[in-house]
Amino acid sequence: MKSWFKQIESSEDGTRFAAAKVLGELTFDHQGLIPVVAQDAENGDILMFAWMNQDALHETIATGRMCYWSRSRKSLWRKGETSGHWQTLHELRTDCDGDVILAKISQEGAACHTLRHSCFYLRLDGDDFVISQK
Amino acid sequence: MKSWFKQIESSEDGTRFAAAKVLGELTFDHQGLIPVVAQDAENGDILMFAWMNQDALHETIATGRMCYWSRSRKSLWRKGETSGHWQTLHELRTDCDGDVILAKISQEGAACHTLRHSCFYLRLDGDDFVISQK
Repeated sequence: MKSWFKQIESSEDGTRFAAAKVLGELTFDHQGLIPVVAQDAENGDILMFAWMNQDALHETIATGRMCYWSRSRKSLWRKGETSGHWQTLHELRTDCDGDVILAKISQEGAACHTLRHSCFYLRLDGDDFVISQK
Repeated sequence: MKSWFKQIESSEDGTRFAAAKVLGELTFDHQGLIPVVAQDAENGDILMFAWMNQDALHETIATGRMCYWSRSRKSLWRKGETSGHWQTLHELRTDCDGDVILAKISQEGAACHTLRHSCFYLRLDGDDFVISQK
């Protein structure tokens, strides 16, 4: 674990740290990416999982609209730019070792490219997976 | 995207696929790992983010207790084995391209090694991050 996050872990609730410092201490992987979990700000559903590079993260924070890094297209992916399915950022968090982002968002339209509400529509049920949002 | 997941994406709700087939089509990265989001089955809070290899995933499904792969220790990490903070699996999902696992769990004690309820206790608030579970 990065020592900076270790250092602050016993701080009390309400302790503040400059965002620029925390963002600078985040761990990006060998491809320069950090995983991002997008959660529905209203009902807590996990909508999708994607990746950001530094630029995508800074753009997301600056604009309040989710911008990811597309690993397949190797470019910034402004979610909604082609589909109209924009995501508005409500809350951004990182975890105890600063290597994951949790974004609470509100979703215009569908998070999933299949037009389903959430990408996580395959649920294990006994010896099968079943297609099910619930 | 893996073509198998593409193939099944227009299937109707309730369509079933053998779990062994779906598990065999999941994408593990170049280190043999798949990301896992652990969500509180009751209140929807995101508790932690970790990784599984094939063995950890199969053990989790077989036992109903969360088993991850510890990237730092390079070994299976049976969550709770040393801390007593076991995680019981309630529901397991994968996403539209089969490269992430979502596990809805019930948590004994604390998910985070800091003894906080969730690892995501750093919330962006204006120009700061603030330590806050809420």
